[in-house]
Amino acid sequence: MFRKPATKQEPLDDTTVDRIDAWWRAANYLSIGQIYLLDNPLLRESLAAEHIKPRLLGHWGTCPGLNFLYAHLNRTIIERDLDMMYVCGPGHGGPAMVAAAWLEGTYSEVYSHIGDDESGLRALFRQFSFPGGVPSHVAPETPGSIHEGGELGYALSHAYGAAFDNPDLIVAAVIGDGEAETGPLATSWHSNKFLNPTTDGTVLPILHLNGYKIANPSLLARIPRSELEALMTGYGHKPYWFEGGFNGEKPADAHRRFAALLDDVLDEIATIRDEARTDTTSTRPAWPMIVFKTPKGWTGPVEVDGSPVEDTWRSHQVPMSAVRGNEEHTGKLADWMLSYRPEGLFDEEGRLRAEIAELNPVGQRRMSANPHANGGLISKDLRLPDFRAHAVEVSPPGSVNAEATRVLGNWLGEVMEANPDNFRVFGPDETVSNRLAATVDVGGKAWNAEILPVDEHLSRDGRVVEMLSEHQCQGWLEGYLLTGRHGLFNSYEAFVHIVDSMFNQHAKWLKVTRNIPWRAPIASLNYLLSSHVWRQDHNGFSHQDPGFIDHVVNKKADIIRVYLPPDANTLLSTYDHCLRTSNYVNVVVAGKQEQAQWLAMDEAIAHCTRGIGIWDWASTDGGNVDPDVVLACAGDVPTLETLAAVDLLTQNFPDLSIRVVNVVDLMRLQDAKEHPHGLSDAEFDALFTTDRPVVFAYHGYPWLIHRLTYRRTNHGNIHVRGYKEEGTTTTPFDMLMLNDLDRYHLVIDVIDRVGRLGRHAAGVRQNMVDSRLRARQHTRETGEDLPEVHDWTWPGLPARD
Amino acid sequence: MFRKPATKQEPLDDTTVDRIDAWWRAANYLSIGQIYLLDNPLLRESLAAEHIKPRLLGHWGTCPGLNFLYAHLNRTIIERDLDMMYVCGPGHGGPAMVAAAWLEGTYSEVYSHIGDDESGLRALFRQFSFPGGVPSHVAPETPGSIHEGGELGYALSHAYGAAFDNPDLIVAAVIGDGEAETGPLATSWHSNKFLNPTTDGTVLPILHLNGYKIANPSLLARIPRSELEALMTGYGHKPYWFEGGFNGEKPADAHRRFAALLDDVLDEIATIRDEARTDTTSTRPAWPMIVFKTPKGWTGPVEVDGSPVEDTWRSHQVPMSAVRGNEEHTGKLADWMLSYRPEGLFDEEGRLRAEIAELNPVGQRRMSANPHANGGLISKDLRLPDFRAHAVEVSPPGSVNAEATRVLGNWLGEVMEANPDNFRVFGPDETVSNRLAATVDVGGKAWNAEILPVDEHLSRDGRVVEMLSEHQCQGWLEGYLLTGRHGLFNSYEAFVHIVDSMFNQHAKWLKVTRNIPWRAPIASLNYLLSSHVWRQDHNGFSHQDPGFIDHVVNKKADIIRVYLPPDANTLLSTYDHCLRTSNYVNVVVAGKQEQAQWLAMDEAIAHCTRGIGIWDWASTDGGNVDPDVVLACAGDVPTLETLAAVDLLTQNFPDLSIRVVNVVDLMRLQDAKEHPHGLSDAEFDALFTTDRPVVFAYHGYPWLIHRLTYRRTNHGNIHVRGYKEEGTTTTPFDMLMLNDLDRYHLVIDVIDRVGRLGRHAAGVRQNMVDSRLRARQHTRETGEDLPEVHDWTWPGLPARD
Repeated sequence: MFRKPATKQEPLDDTTVDRIDAWWRAANYLSIGQIYLLDNPLLRESLAAEHIKPRLLGHWGTCPGLNFLYAHLNRTIIERDLDMMYVCGPGHGGPAMVAAAWLEGTYSEVYSHIGDDESGLRALFRQFSFPGGVPSHVAPETPGSIHEGGELGYALSHAYGAAFDNPDLIVAAVIGDGEAETGPLATSWHSNKFLNPTTDGTVLPILHLNGYKIANPSLLARIPRSELEALMTGYGHKPYWFEGGFNGEKPADAHRRFAALLDDVLDEIATIRDEARTDTTSTRPAWPMIVFKTPKGWTGPVEVDGSPVEDTWRSHQVPMSAVRGNEEHTGKLADWMLSYRPEGLFDEEGRLRAEIAELNPVGQRRMSANPHANGGLISKDLRLPDFRAHAVEVSPPGSVNAEATRVLGNWLGEVMEANPDNFRVFGPDETVSNRLAATVDVGGKAWNAEILPVDEHLSRDGRVVEMLSEHQCQGWLEGYLLTGRHGLFNSYEAFVHIVDSMFNQHAKWLKVTRNIPWRAPIASLNYLLSSHVWRQDHNGFSHQDPGFIDHVVNKKADIIRVYLPPDANTLLSTYDHCLRTSNYVNVVVAGKQEQAQWLAMDEAIAHCTRGIGIWDWASTDGGNVDPDVVLACAGDVPTLETLAAVDLLTQNFPDLSIRVVNVVDLMRLQDAKEHPHGLSDAEFDALFTTDRPVVFAYHGYPWLIHRLTYRRTNHGNIHVRGYKEEGTTTTPFDMLMLNDLDRYHLVIDVIDRVGRLGRHAAGVRQNMVDSRLRARQHTRETGEDLPEVHDWTWPGLPARD
Repeated sequence: MFRKPATKQEPLDDTTVDRIDAWWRAANYLSIGQIYLLDNPLLRESLAAEHIKPRLLGHWGTCPGLNFLYAHLNRTIIERDLDMMYVCGPGHGGPAMVAAAWLEGTYSEVYSHIGDDESGLRALFRQFSFPGGVPSHVAPETPGSIHEGGELGYALSHAYGAAFDNPDLIVAAVIGDGEAETGPLATSWHSNKFLNPTTDGTVLPILHLNGYKIANPSLLARIPRSELEALMTGYGHKPYWFEGGFNGEKPADAHRRFAALLDDVLDEIATIRDEARTDTTSTRPAWPMIVFKTPKGWTGPVEVDGSPVEDTWRSHQVPMSAVRGNEEHTGKLADWMLSYRPEGLFDEEGRLRAEIAELNPVGQRRMSANPHANGGLISKDLRLPDFRAHAVEVSPPGSVNAEATRVLGNWLGEVMEANPDNFRVFGPDETVSNRLAATVDVGGKAWNAEILPVDEHLSRDGRVVEMLSEHQCQGWLEGYLLTGRHGLFNSYEAFVHIVDSMFNQHAKWLKVTRNIPWRAPIASLNYLLSSHVWRQDHNGFSHQDPGFIDHVVNKKADIIRVYLPPDANTLLSTYDHCLRTSNYVNVVVAGKQEQAQWLAMDEAIAHCTRGIGIWDWASTDGGNVDPDVVLACAGDVPTLETLAAVDLLTQNFPDLSIRVVNVVDLMRLQDAKEHPHGLSDAEFDALFTTDRPVVFAYHGYPWLIHRLTYRRTNHGNIHVRGYKEEGTTTTPFDMLMLNDLDRYHLVIDVIDRVGRLGRHAAGVRQNMVDSRLRARQHTRETGEDLPEVHDWTWPGLPARD
């Protein structure tokens, strides 16, 4: 439970000031030691070349500020028994966060080879930015973190994702003033309009205004205070301004002033929470945020080689970069480190002195050990209602139409109902457009800005979170998953590329965590990509791009999964599976339009379990091992076209032996050596034969199928149709024709590849060409597809001798 | 020349009010006509089913606001002789911008099949969102536009890119309140800190606050006015607030009020420009911006089927979506369209009445015909200094080291000097890190926020534009190119994925413009990707991703070019070529670290001209058509490893016949049928043989090479090494070993694939395995690579019999 505001805080007593300052000095000392030292961690010997790393790789500039904040937050955690996480936005804060985790003892608990004494310190220093060690950024290896410090821009989105549905949590989110220039960060301030002060936790943004990036000033440090305060006010916050460490201010004075400010801020947070939780009619609060303006590289060298360093961009990385073998710099480094008075910080064995360690919270109250930051530890499995109850009745195949994502949405609505504080749907204003309206009906849409009578479904309690920012959707979901919950991100297929780079970082995070035993598995990141390339009737060429799959499959095979369910029942079965998995990224592509349904639920489950299979009911090969041709398909629209092509083929070539193979799980195509879902060569050959022509109708860019299958025996005979970047605003069938993926062209492809079709083959081929021309012409004249292409239904196969 | 402030404007006279209102009504009428009508464009017959489109695809909601603004801007263009562009941010404003271009006559000028009379109107209506017609968004087909309305978020970045170095231009940038929620848009407001009021034009942001997106309210419409004004103030603007059309306000009153506000705004702009251009010590101005709050679907149906429509999200697309065959809706549509009194707008022939047309500016002053919006028309070729003057002296190959991007940077500095108002370099705070420091030395860095004494190279006049936002870099550059100038975007390789989706949209724009005769070609979009995957010593796994190339090659072959120059001279030659091209996207990947140089300038030019070729001096096949093995390489680091492997191989197998093939132009690998740079099969076979093993060392994800070559005769023998997503913070050589791309492993790959190497092959192989182990162990112990791997130099080939 959160604390009510304490009575007005007293100014810090001297003992506490000293303790905070000592903890800060210790953390700064450790930050520098990690960057520079291989050995002699406590400087008990005179500093020599062999103690210094040969390659100095790390970033000092942001560390003292991060450490200062950590020390002060620790005091308040203890005094107020706060449940608090620390999200470290500045990308290069690695040394600081590792230092804090070591000082709190967490580091030695999770890494037994890094003890809490001098030899542990030596190992801690050595491993940093060292081969076989830990990265220079905050990373999965850093206890207490859910936020990689590599790519910048997502600190606040992650923090809000963590705060959702964690009413007692406070997420201190430190934002670098470099990161603050990115687009994703700039819009993520508005996350406060999606936070429910009653059922969600609190995010305390702290803008770390230290003035410089790699080689430039930061923008927000170079606008007047009045503008920056207006900006924060405009973002909906109440800004608190702190400047410390300038003009020779004594640390003790800075500590006293900041502690008082922090107490005011936390009092205000407690008041806001309290009011919101007792008065449900209260309006959106202006949550406090802190502008924390301190010198870059605070307490570091003022000047090196005649150039100013502290409070300039020269503090960004390594203030003295050629120390080894440079006596002057070596001496300067020793003086600098000794200025923190390590003898007063660490005891004989090199342990943090007990009186300083009193600033460490206990157990899970330590930010480095907060279980929310290792979300798998506290994750609860979803309660999943039986998706079979939503089965579309399909008998025989093709006899009924349905909107696949609407069917899925109905089930997801039940999932939401069964998991009221553990499952959210994110989307950029497209959830209803993507036909997941049931989730909105059940859960409402999160909204804590103004609500008007005309609005529908908006509420503070909403479980569907929609903002027109794919970055926010992805960032929120990542934060939500990393703190142990479940969810999905639904997007238009083309625009999910907006988060390509965020996906990269999350996939890399997951890959690394697989080798970190103390990180418990988290729920998979689930995408639902709809409004896909083949149905952009409203929008045209700019909305046509099925390439996210191509992007995804570049990442490690044990992380990524791609599914292309051909109808509603297979989509249900697929998504039920995805919501049960952990540590994956699942990409599911499914259309939202009315389309023919193929598999009854039992068949759908069996098909999805295999991930790929022969559709006997659509094949005319009678189970022969040697059909004349294999028609393969992946994706809902290509499956429909393939079956329509089978219909045309059987009408025209009744003796043709056709095998239809449908692919749900795309990674089945890959080699078993390359992907855990991959088929063995023998299995692949059994499906695709070793020598028969294969005409493959694929949802996306056709070359991806070649990239997945180039090692297969029969690869030379695989001919793929897909999206080849031809499109415009036109009808669905015209889109297929523009890309040669339509049924007529598939028939042409078969005729061109199968010999012995008889003399009438040429005539049939010409009919297909004519059919395409006729369809094209009709569309240009009327704006509509020929009725026959949409009225077509699967007639079943003719009886055979 | 810009105008000084006029004397205080009089209120609009009634004639002008009437003219503006008539123009607005005409534009609204045309917007609706495009969405709904196939025929009967002037409603001179009773509206019947056959006049109505069968599929209603378009967006009404934002149109009336866009049209209102257009009409008012036109008045000021005429009165003040302004050179003005209109950037239409709201994605779905297509009908409005097409309507304006038609009313101004531009549409009929560039599309002869769309006349300026009734039959032209019929064609105009019919083509909209119709197969074979034009998209429902603003698109390349729309005269006056540089900004696709598909993906959202880039309106302001594009507008600023257009304004740079166009001192007399005003760019009216209308920002949708949906778009305003995106990250890129949220940070792009800060572009004003990079604008020089003396030498750049002005951007006038107009936030079109119409309250709703597809299915939700917009965020900025649901925060208090005080917060939104604070936000705009915080972004550095002076906000002007306009609310019009609410509570039954008469249009005439809205026109009068808005005209007065717009005059104030333009007076203020003129004053700011004037002051900045006479007083060079002036500080950054707070440029005006307008919050334009009007009802969504203003003047549209108030209610449909009992639900409110005007001023709700139900106006977003088609207010009545089932008109054809619904008599009530048909009647309602007719009433709605007739409410604009078309008989007073269009004459007997269907032409815009002359007195209304007086609101159209003349010639190039029309925003739909402004030449800046068809930048190729006014583009000047770059003056390119001779890059040969920067040649690195290389004789023999491998005898000298250089930092390739630094050499390039020195030449780019000269390019900048020779083109002082026509060429810019964009980058996210990495330009100096990427070793292009010379461009900063020559051109300075654009900065119009506060400058402190400690700063270096910052100035209002800066030609290098750096903000920590890849979105901004890309968006600015796109705007700059689309208005006829030249430039490049330098980025860390991994993080260019941040703009994957922006690249998509630009590539699609270029593809479409190729079929629009009136669009003159614009300079290519040039990327320089450095700090690449193989040299992330500081950063590690999060900074390792060479997949942008994979993303790029999904786009149309006639648009995209990918270059991997192996050294400085080839990089110079490549970039000289890129800066001379138009309508391409050129991706160039090059390292910034000291590395061996291979080709003298003449050889480099010849090699780049071919794009791929045998390096005779590194081959031991004596020109034989049948070497024992082909060692292919693409990328600087893989080339070095390949040559080191050749050295090892020749030492151990003096009789082995090796051919070295280096690839600069990656698209040479593809089939000539697939890409204009592609080799014919015969050419490919001549390089790669038809049956010999090929060990291919590639810069990026290895499967891309397979995707490009799977149809080649010898594909089955091509074995590719590249980045397989194995990485961490470690040394450069360890990175290669983690991915099996190191010289030792390349030798192993050769041994494993070439027979008849003699009995000692097994021993050599074991030596290679041991060398790898030793290198790994050394790195883990010392943090450094074995000196021998970096000290290695190309020894030349031994003399042969």
